[in-house]
Amino acid sequence: MSRVIADISMSIDGYVTGPDAGPAHGLGIGGEGIHAWVLEQPRSPIDDEVLARAFESTGAVVLGRRLFDVVDGPDGWNDDIGYGYDQDQSVAPPCFVVTHEPPEKVRLASRFRFVPGGVSEAVRLAGEAAGDKNVVVMGGANVVDQCLAAGLVDELHIHFSPLLMGAGTRLFTLAGKMALVQREVIHSPRATHVTYDVVDQ
Amino acid sequence: MSRVIADISMSIDGYVTGPDAGPAHGLGIGGEGIHAWVLEQPRSPIDDEVLARAFESTGAVVLGRRLFDVVDGPDGWNDDIGYGYDQDQSVAPPCFVVTHEPPEKVRLASRFRFVPGGVSEAVRLAGEAAGDKNVVVMGGANVVDQCLAAGLVDELHIHFSPLLMGAGTRLFTLAGKMALVQREVIHSPRATHVTYDVVDQ
Repeated sequence: MSRVIADISMSIDGYVTGPDAGPAHGLGIGGEGIHAWVLEQPRSPIDDEVLARAFESTGAVVLGRRLFDVVDGPDGWNDDIGYGYDQDQSVAPPCFVVTHEPPEKVRLASRFRFVPGGVSEAVRLAGEAAGDKNVVVMGGANVVDQCLAAGLVDELHIHFSPLLMGAGTRLFTLAGKMALVQREVIHSPRATHVTYDVVDQ
Repeated sequence: MSRVIADISMSIDGYVTGPDAGPAHGLGIGGEGIHAWVLEQPRSPIDDEVLARAFESTGAVVLGRRLFDVVDGPDGWNDDIGYGYDQDQSVAPPCFVVTHEPPEKVRLASRFRFVPGGVSEAVRLAGEAAGDKNVVVMGGANVVDQCLAAGLVDELHIHFSPLLMGAGTRLFTLAGKMALVQREVIHSPRATHVTYDVVDQ
Protein backbone atom coordinates (compact mmCIF):
# COMPACT_ATOMS: atom_id res chain seq x y z
CA MET A 1 0.00 0.00 0.00
CA SER A 2 1.22 3.51 -0.76
CA ARG A 3 2.61 5.39 2.24
CA VAL A 4 3.71 9.00 2.67
CA ILE A 5 7.29 9.02 3.90
CA ALA A 6 9.31 12.00 5.07
CA ASP A 7 12.90 10.94 4.38
CA ILE A 8 15.73 13.25 5.39
CA SER A 9 19.31 13.31 6.71
CA MET A 10 19.96 15.27 9.88
CA SER A 11 22.83 16.15 12.21
CA ILE A 12 22.22 15.02 15.76
CA ASP A 13 21.55 18.63 16.76
CA GLY A 14 18.68 18.72 14.28
CA TYR A 15 20.04 20.50 11.20
CA VAL A 16 19.38 19.32 7.64
CA THR A 17 21.71 21.87 6.01
CA GLY A 18 24.59 24.09 7.08
CA PRO A 19 24.27 27.91 7.01
CA ASP A 20 23.50 29.72 3.71
CA ALA A 21 21.91 26.75 1.94
CA GLY A 22 20.83 27.51 -1.63
CA PRO A 23 22.07 27.26 -5.22
CA ALA A 24 25.46 28.78 -4.30
CA HIS A 25 26.05 26.35 -1.41
CA GLY A 26 23.73 23.40 -2.06
CA LEU A 27 23.66 21.88 1.39
CA GLY A 28 24.88 24.99 3.18
CA ILE A 29 28.40 25.71 4.34
CA GLY A 30 29.76 22.47 5.79
CA GLY A 31 26.42 20.76 5.18
CA GLU A 32 27.99 17.97 3.12
CA GLY A 33 28.81 16.25 6.40
CA ILE A 34 25.09 15.73 7.00
CA HIS A 35 24.92 13.76 3.74
CA ALA A 36 28.31 12.04 3.98
CA TRP A 37 26.70 8.59 4.02
CA VAL A 38 25.42 9.34 0.47
CA LEU A 39 28.22 11.52 -0.89
CA GLU A 40 31.47 10.00 0.39
CA GLN A 41 33.14 7.28 -1.64
CA PRO A 42 33.50 4.41 -1.34
CA ARG A 43 29.97 4.24 -0.01
CA SER A 44 29.25 1.67 2.68
CA PRO A 45 27.36 -1.39 1.36
CA ILE A 46 24.86 -0.80 4.15
CA ASP A 47 24.20 2.76 2.97
CA ASP A 48 24.00 1.54 -0.64
CA GLU A 49 21.31 -0.90 0.43
CA VAL A 50 19.38 1.81 2.33
CA LEU A 51 19.45 4.01 -0.79
CA ALA A 52 18.50 1.18 -3.14
CA ARG A 53 15.53 0.18 -0.99
CA ALA A 54 14.35 3.79 -0.86
CA PHE A 55 14.67 4.30 -4.62
CA GLU A 56 12.88 1.06 -5.45
CA SER A 57 9.90 1.87 -3.27
CA THR A 58 9.50 5.51 -4.32
CA GLY A 59 6.64 6.23 -6.72
CA ALA A 60 6.65 10.03 -6.52
CA VAL A 61 8.56 12.77 -4.72
CA VAL A 62 7.44 16.00 -3.04
CA LEU A 63 9.91 18.84 -2.50
CA GLY A 64 10.04 22.56 -1.88
CA ARG A 65 11.00 25.33 -4.26
CA ARG A 66 14.38 26.16 -2.70
CA LEU A 67 15.42 22.52 -2.74
CA PHE A 68 14.24 22.33 -6.36
CA ASP A 69 16.54 25.24 -7.23
CA VAL A 70 19.44 23.23 -5.81
CA VAL A 71 18.67 19.86 -7.41
CA ASP A 72 17.84 21.41 -10.81
CA GLY A 73 20.95 23.60 -10.66
CA PRO A 74 24.24 22.87 -12.45
CA ASP A 75 25.63 21.02 -9.42
CA GLY A 76 22.36 19.23 -8.76
CA TRP A 77 21.00 15.84 -9.70
CA ASN A 78 22.83 13.82 -12.32
CA ASP A 79 23.17 10.16 -13.12
CA ASP A 80 25.02 9.51 -9.87
CA ILE A 81 23.28 11.76 -7.38
CA GLY A 82 19.62 12.26 -6.57
CA TYR A 83 16.77 10.68 -8.49
CA GLY A 84 18.83 10.61 -11.69
CA TYR A 85 18.85 12.62 -14.89
CA ASP A 86 15.68 12.37 -16.97
CA GLN A 87 16.59 9.94 -19.73
CA ASP A 88 14.79 6.99 -18.21
CA GLN A 89 11.22 8.05 -17.59
CA SER A 90 10.20 4.46 -16.87
CA VAL A 91 12.30 4.38 -13.72
CA ALA A 92 12.62 7.91 -12.40
CA PRO A 93 9.72 9.05 -10.23
CA PRO A 94 7.87 12.29 -10.98
CA CYS A 95 8.66 15.12 -8.57
CA PHE A 96 6.07 17.61 -7.33
CA VAL A 97 7.46 20.99 -6.37
CA VAL A 98 5.45 23.06 -3.89
CA THR A 99 5.59 26.63 -5.22
CA HIS A 100 3.52 29.63 -6.18
CA GLU A 101 6.19 30.72 -8.65
CA PRO A 102 7.07 28.04 -11.24
CA PRO A 103 10.47 28.71 -12.81
CA GLU A 104 10.66 29.76 -16.48
CA LYS A 105 13.40 27.34 -17.41
CA VAL A 106 13.94 23.86 -15.98
CA ARG A 107 17.02 21.73 -16.64
CA LEU A 108 15.37 18.42 -15.76
CA ALA A 109 12.18 19.56 -17.46
CA SER A 110 10.37 16.27 -17.87
CA ARG A 111 10.92 15.40 -14.25
CA PHE A 112 9.23 18.21 -12.36
CA ARG A 113 5.65 19.39 -11.96
CA PHE A 114 4.85 22.59 -10.11
CA VAL A 115 2.03 22.68 -7.60
CA PRO A 116 0.64 26.01 -6.39
CA GLY A 117 -1.78 24.58 -3.81
CA GLY A 118 0.60 23.88 -0.95
CA VAL A 119 1.75 20.61 0.59
CA SER A 120 -1.71 19.01 0.75
CA GLU A 121 -2.22 19.32 -3.00
CA ALA A 122 1.34 18.20 -3.72
CA VAL A 123 1.00 15.09 -1.56
CA ARG A 124 -2.39 14.30 -3.12
CA LEU A 125 -1.09 14.60 -6.68
CA ALA A 126 2.04 12.63 -5.80
CA GLY A 127 -0.15 9.92 -4.31
CA GLU A 128 -2.10 9.64 -7.55
CA ALA A 129 1.14 9.37 -9.51
CA ALA A 130 2.80 6.90 -7.14
CA GLY A 131 0.41 4.01 -7.65
CA ASP A 132 1.26 1.29 -5.15
CA LYS A 133 4.64 2.79 -4.43
CA ASN A 134 5.39 5.40 -1.75
CA VAL A 135 5.28 9.17 -1.81
CA VAL A 136 8.58 10.51 -0.49
CA VAL A 137 8.69 14.01 0.99
CA MET A 138 12.40 14.72 0.60
CA GLY A 139 12.63 18.29 1.92
CA GLY A 140 13.50 20.97 2.51
CA ALA A 141 12.93 21.20 6.22
CA ASN A 142 9.98 23.55 5.87
CA VAL A 143 8.07 21.28 3.50
CA VAL A 144 8.71 18.26 5.74
CA ASP A 145 7.58 20.29 8.76
CA GLN A 146 4.44 21.46 6.97
CA CYS A 147 3.58 17.89 6.00
CA LEU A 148 4.10 16.65 9.57
CA ALA A 149 2.04 19.51 11.02
CA ALA A 150 -0.77 18.81 8.53
CA GLY A 151 -0.88 15.14 9.53
CA LEU A 152 0.09 14.01 6.04
CA VAL A 153 3.07 11.80 7.00
CA ASP A 154 2.81 8.05 7.72
CA GLU A 155 6.50 7.33 8.27
CA LEU A 156 9.57 9.33 9.18
CA HIS A 157 12.92 8.04 7.89
CA ILE A 158 15.68 9.92 9.67
CA HIS A 159 19.31 9.40 8.76
CA PHE A 160 21.22 10.62 11.84
CA SER A 161 24.67 11.80 10.78
CA PRO A 162 27.41 11.88 13.41
CA LEU A 163 28.12 15.57 13.76
CA LEU A 164 26.90 18.75 15.43
CA MET A 165 26.29 21.55 12.88
CA GLY A 166 25.58 24.35 15.36
CA ALA A 167 23.82 26.40 12.66
CA GLY A 168 21.86 25.99 9.44
CA THR A 169 18.33 24.90 8.61
CA ARG A 170 16.61 23.19 11.50
CA LEU A 171 14.06 20.41 11.09
CA PHE A 172 11.00 19.97 13.33
CA THR A 173 10.13 23.61 13.93
CA LEU A 174 6.39 23.30 13.15
CA ALA A 175 5.47 19.72 13.97
CA GLY A 176 4.78 20.12 17.70
CA LYS A 177 4.32 17.07 19.90
CA MET A 178 3.96 13.77 18.11
CA ALA A 179 4.19 10.14 19.20
CA LEU A 180 6.27 7.83 17.04
CA VAL A 181 6.95 4.11 16.98
CA GLN A 182 10.53 3.15 16.23
CA ARG A 183 10.23 0.38 13.66
CA GLU A 184 13.67 -0.25 12.19
CA VAL A 185 17.23 0.78 13.02
CA ILE A 186 20.10 0.18 10.60
CA HIS A 187 23.56 1.59 11.12
CA SER A 188 26.55 2.00 8.89
CA PRO A 189 29.87 3.61 9.83
CA ARG A 190 28.54 6.99 8.62
CA ALA A 191 24.92 7.12 9.81
CA THR A 192 22.16 5.61 11.90
CA HIS A 193 19.05 5.11 9.76
CA VAL A 194 15.84 4.97 11.78
CA THR A 195 12.31 4.32 10.51
CA TYR A 196 9.50 5.71 12.66
CA ASP A 197 5.78 5.24 12.23
CA VAL A 198 3.77 8.37 12.97
CA VAL A 199 0.97 7.30 15.30
CA ASP A 200 -0.45 10.53 16.67
CA GLN A 201 -2.32 12.20 13.86
CA MET B 1 41.30 4.93 31.27
CA SER B 2 38.89 7.47 32.65
CA ARG B 3 36.77 9.27 30.04
CA VAL B 4 34.36 12.18 30.32
CA ILE B 5 30.98 11.09 28.96
CA ALA B 6 27.93 13.25 28.34
CA ASP B 7 25.05 10.79 28.66
CA ILE B 8 21.51 12.01 28.05
CA SER B 9 18.13 10.98 26.62
CA MET B 10 16.65 13.13 23.87
CA SER B 11 13.58 13.31 21.66
CA ILE B 12 14.43 13.23 17.98
CA ASP B 13 13.64 16.94 17.76
CA GLY B 14 16.35 17.62 20.32
CA TYR B 15 14.55 18.09 23.63
CA VAL B 16 15.74 16.56 26.91
CA THR B 17 12.68 17.66 28.92
CA GLY B 18 9.15 18.78 28.21
CA PRO B 19 7.99 22.32 29.04
CA ASP B 20 8.16 23.59 32.67
CA ALA B 21 10.81 21.16 33.88
CA GLY B 22 11.67 21.54 37.56
CA PRO B 23 10.75 20.14 40.98
CA ALA B 24 7.00 20.40 40.25
CA HIS B 25 7.27 18.56 36.89
CA GLY B 26 10.56 16.67 37.05
CA LEU B 27 11.08 16.01 33.36
CA GLY B 28 8.70 18.70 32.17
CA ILE B 29 5.11 18.25 31.07
CA GLY B 30 5.03 15.10 28.94
CA GLY B 31 8.78 14.70 29.31
CA GLU B 32 8.47 11.17 30.72
CA GLY B 33 8.25 9.96 27.13
CA ILE B 34 11.86 11.02 26.58
CA HIS B 35 12.89 8.66 29.37
CA ALA B 36 10.39 5.86 28.65
CA TRP B 37 13.20 3.37 27.99
CA VAL B 38 14.25 3.82 31.67
CA LEU B 39 10.88 4.45 33.31
CA GLU B 40 8.41 2.10 31.64
CA GLN B 41 7.97 -1.39 33.00
CA PRO B 42 8.73 -4.07 32.11
CA ARG B 43 11.99 -2.62 30.93
CA SER B 44 13.51 -4.13 27.81
CA PRO B 45 16.48 -6.44 28.56
CA ILE B 46 18.46 -4.40 26.05
CA ASP B 47 17.76 -1.18 27.95
CA ASP B 48 18.56 -2.93 31.24
CA GLU B 49 21.93 -3.89 29.80
CA VAL B 50 22.61 -0.34 28.58
CA LEU B 51 21.83 1.00 32.07
CA ALA B 52 23.88 -1.67 33.83
CA ARG B 53 26.93 -1.01 31.65
CA ALA B 54 26.63 2.73 32.29
CA PHE B 55 26.31 2.31 36.06
CA GLU B 56 29.23 -0.12 36.29
CA SER B 57 31.58 2.19 34.42
CA THR B 58 30.63 5.42 36.22
CA GLY B 59 33.10 6.68 38.82
CA ALA B 60 31.63 10.13 39.39
CA VAL B 61 28.74 12.26 38.11
CA VAL B 62 28.48 15.94 37.17
CA LEU B 63 25.10 17.67 37.12
CA GLY B 64 23.54 21.12 37.23
CA ARG B 65 21.69 22.76 40.08
CA ARG B 66 18.21 22.54 38.59
CA LEU B 67 18.63 18.84 37.87
CA PHE B 68 19.92 18.39 41.41
CA ASP B 69 16.72 19.97 42.76
CA VAL B 70 14.75 17.35 40.85
CA VAL B 71 16.80 14.28 41.77
CA ASP B 72 17.11 15.31 45.45
CA GLY B 73 13.40 16.14 45.62
CA PRO B 74 10.71 13.87 47.09
CA ASP B 75 10.01 12.30 43.69
CA GLY B 76 13.69 12.05 42.80
CA TRP B 77 16.26 9.30 43.10
CA ASN B 78 15.45 6.26 45.18
CA ASP B 79 16.57 2.66 45.22
CA ASP B 80 14.97 2.03 41.84
CA ILE B 81 15.64 5.21 39.91
CA GLY B 82 18.80 7.21 39.36
CA TYR B 83 22.11 6.49 41.04
CA GLY B 84 20.36 5.02 44.07
CA TYR B 85 19.72 6.17 47.61
CA ASP B 86 22.82 6.76 49.72
CA GLN B 87 23.02 3.68 51.92
CA ASP B 88 25.75 1.97 49.90
CA GLN B 89 28.65 4.38 49.62
CA SER B 90 30.89 1.66 48.25
CA VAL B 91 28.85 1.42 45.06
CA ALA B 92 27.17 4.76 44.49
CA PRO B 93 29.32 7.34 42.70
CA PRO B 94 29.83 10.83 44.16
CA CYS B 95 27.91 13.56 42.34
CA PHE B 96 29.31 17.04 41.73
CA VAL B 97 26.70 19.77 41.42
CA VAL B 98 27.67 22.91 39.50
CA THR B 99 26.24 25.79 41.52
CA HIS B 100 27.04 29.11 43.14
CA GLU B 101 24.27 28.56 45.67
CA PRO B 102 24.56 25.31 47.63
CA PRO B 103 21.21 24.29 49.16
CA GLU B 104 20.78 24.44 52.92
CA LYS B 105 19.22 21.01 53.25
CA VAL B 106 19.99 17.96 51.15
CA ARG B 107 17.98 14.74 51.25
CA LEU B 108 20.74 12.55 49.79
CA ALA B 109 23.32 14.46 51.83
CA SER B 110 26.26 12.10 51.62
CA ARG B 111 25.95 11.81 47.85
CA PHE B 112 26.35 15.38 46.64
CA ARG B 113 29.20 17.88 46.63
CA PHE B 114 28.65 21.46 45.50
CA VAL B 115 31.13 23.11 43.18
CA PRO B 116 31.10 26.90 42.73
CA GLY B 117 33.78 27.04 40.02
CA GLY B 118 31.72 26.06 36.99
CA VAL B 119 31.84 22.98 34.78
CA SER B 120 35.64 22.89 34.43
CA GLU B 121 36.16 22.61 38.18
CA ALA B 122 33.31 20.10 38.53
CA VAL B 123 34.72 17.85 35.80
CA ARG B 124 38.22 18.11 37.29
CA LEU B 125 37.05 17.17 40.80
CA ALA B 126 34.88 14.39 39.40
CA GLY B 127 37.88 13.07 37.48
CA GLU B 128 39.92 12.92 40.69
CA ALA B 129 37.10 11.03 42.42
CA ALA B 130 36.41 8.66 39.52
CA GLY B 131 39.76 6.87 39.52
CA ASP B 132 39.88 4.58 36.49
CA LYS B 133 36.15 4.81 35.95
CA ASN B 134 34.36 7.41 33.84
CA VAL B 135 33.02 10.84 34.68
CA VAL B 136 29.41 11.06 33.51
CA VAL B 137 27.92 14.47 32.78
CA MET B 138 24.23 13.64 33.14
CA GLY B 139 22.62 17.03 32.58
CA GLY B 140 20.78 19.24 32.48
CA ALA B 141 21.07 20.41 28.92
CA ASN B 142 22.90 23.59 29.87
CA VAL B 143 25.62 21.77 31.82
CA VAL B 144 26.09 19.25 28.98
CA ASP B 145 26.25 22.13 26.48
CA GLN B 146 28.77 24.03 28.59
CA CYS B 147 30.97 20.92 28.87
CA LEU B 148 30.81 20.34 25.09
CA ALA B 149 31.55 23.98 24.33
CA ALA B 150 34.52 23.93 26.73
CA GLY B 151 35.98 20.85 25.03
CA LEU B 152 35.66 18.76 28.19
CA VAL B 153 33.71 15.83 26.67
CA ASP B 154 35.34 12.69 25.21
CA GLU B 155 32.18 10.75 24.39
CA LEU B 156 28.55 11.56 23.78
CA HIS B 157 26.00 8.87 24.65
CA ILE B 158 22.65 9.87 23.17
CA HIS B 159 19.52 7.86 23.81
CA PHE B 160 17.17 8.85 20.97
CA SER B 161 13.57 8.39 22.10
CA PRO B 162 10.90 7.94 19.43
CA LEU B 163 8.85 11.10 19.81
CA LEU B 164 8.69 14.76 18.87
CA MET B 165 8.30 16.99 21.94
CA GLY B 166 7.81 20.29 20.11
CA ALA B 167 8.76 22.28 23.23
CA GLY B 168 10.85 21.99 26.37
CA THR B 169 14.57 22.18 27.12
CA ARG B 170 16.68 21.87 24.02
CA LEU B 171 20.11 20.25 23.96
CA PHE B 172 23.02 21.47 21.81
CA THR B 173 22.41 25.21 21.99
CA LEU B 174 26.02 26.18 22.83
CA ALA B 175 28.20 23.46 21.35
CA GLY B 176 28.55 24.84 17.81
CA LYS B 177 30.02 22.70 15.05
CA MET B 178 31.69 19.49 16.16
CA ALA B 179 32.81 16.36 14.35
CA LEU B 180 31.85 13.04 15.92
CA VAL B 181 32.63 9.41 15.19
CA GLN B 182 29.72 7.04 15.59
CA ARG B 183 31.15 4.14 17.58
CA GLU B 184 28.27 1.97 18.74
CA VAL B 185 24.55 1.72 17.99
CA ILE B 186 22.23 -0.40 20.13
CA HIS B 187 18.47 -0.34 19.76
CA SER B 188 15.62 -1.55 21.90
CA PRO B 189 11.91 -1.17 21.18
CA ARG B 190 11.92 2.15 23.10
CA ALA B 191 15.15 3.87 22.09
CA THR B 192 18.20 3.97 19.87
CA HIS B 193 21.35 4.27 21.97
CA VAL B 194 24.31 5.76 20.10
CA THR B 195 27.85 6.27 21.36
CA TYR B 196 29.84 9.03 19.64
CA ASP B 197 33.49 9.92 20.12
CA VAL B 198 34.11 13.66 20.10
CA VAL B 199 37.03 14.22 17.72
CA ASP B 200 37.04 17.97 17.08
CA GLN B 201 38.21 19.63 20.25
